[in-house]
Amino acid sequence: MKIYEASTAPNPRRVRIFLAEKGIEMEYVQLDIGAGENLTKEQRKKNPSTKVPFLELDDGICIGETVAICRYFEELHPEIPLMGTGALEKAQIEMWQRNVEFYFMLQVGMCFQHSTGYFKDRMTPVPDYGNAAGALAVSYLDILDERLATSAYVAGDSFSIADITLLCALDFARVVKIRPSEQQVNIARWYADVSARPSAKA
Amino acid sequence: MKIYEASTAPNPRRVRIFLAEKGIEMEYVQLDIGAGENLTKEQRKKNPSTKVPFLELDDGICIGETVAICRYFEELHPEIPLMGTGALEKAQIEMWQRNVEFYFMLQVGMCFQHSTGYFKDRMTPVPDYGNAAGALAVSYLDILDERLATSAYVAGDSFSIADITLLCALDFARVVKIRPSEQQVNIARWYADVSARPSAKA
Repeated sequence: MKIYEASTAPNPRRVRIFLAEKGIEMEYVQLDIGAGENLTKEQRKKNPSTKVPFLELDDGICIGETVAICRYFEELHPEIPLMGTGALEKAQIEMWQRNVEFYFMLQVGMCFQHSTGYFKDRMTPVPDYGNAAGALAVSYLDILDERLATSAYVAGDSFSIADITLLCALDFARVVKIRPSEQQVNIARWYADVSARPSAKA
Repeated sequence: MKIYEASTAPNPRRVRIFLAEKGIEMEYVQLDIGAGENLTKEQRKKNPSTKVPFLELDDGICIGETVAICRYFEELHPEIPLMGTGALEKAQIEMWQRNVEFYFMLQVGMCFQHSTGYFKDRMTPVPDYGNAAGALAVSYLDILDERLATSAYVAGDSFSIADITLLCALDFARVVKIRPSEQQVNIARWYADVSARPSAKA
């Protein structure tokens, strides 16, 4: 099996960290998304959404979507759970993972796409919207700082996929100059912790 | 336990249909989101994201996010699986659920928020972005029609959470006048099928 990705994009890094935490080796194939290598007819056949990363199994079946790829490996290798065990913990981790994804990572991504013009060959940026999305991302950092004041990790006492999503989104947010403030000391404590994990280099 | 929701919004309906398919009875508490009843201090304490629906357990623990609530009941009542069984099927259903959610439902929602001004008391609509999001939703219907040409349901041979997401998003899309075209006969076949299920009335 192999994963098609673009090493500098935030979503592929989420999967790389997830697999590194589980100790799973993987073959990675780079696609130049700036040059549109993900948009060819051949690629669309494998991966209609054209988003990276996607997983190609040995029998040719392809699975797109970061969290779906993570789910596949979580089910196959549940020993080191990153998506929880039991109904309540699984639901709480999924809640936080999705909260971070929708209210921070997606907003950072929209800010990037609509304020930098990086993909202007394939979409029409709306800078006013990009700026509004960036402001939403910044305001969500307050909720995260409050959460991390009473919780070791984003979704509770254990490192989970929710932390991976936040770490990748926060590092990517540098490109649009969105950073936690100096007052957000709980995020700083958490960031130092998760960045020091060996998987963070993946 | 009880679920706080707003009966006309699309995400609460996703949970109601999910529970109806599983035959789970539930107490529902209505919040008037137009009047901001979800934004009070008391509500934010329970549900920091302020989005509906959210589940309140008898011990006071709250779980927000539609798919996280569904996950909770899927784990407790796996007899009629709506999120798959086995690593591959779980991953494929999650991929399609997320594809429909990001590339159709979210775009419909952004079109609604940014082109109608429904929430203009709490956000600044950017109509150009709302129109662009609507166009993305319309273009994704082509991918769905192609998919449903060879697949009985969105994620494969069985009805799943991916179908629930699409049904609720498609019905909600009426408010911004986004409809499948007459040529999209595969969507029409699928829609007639899933709309006739008793759960669709939930």
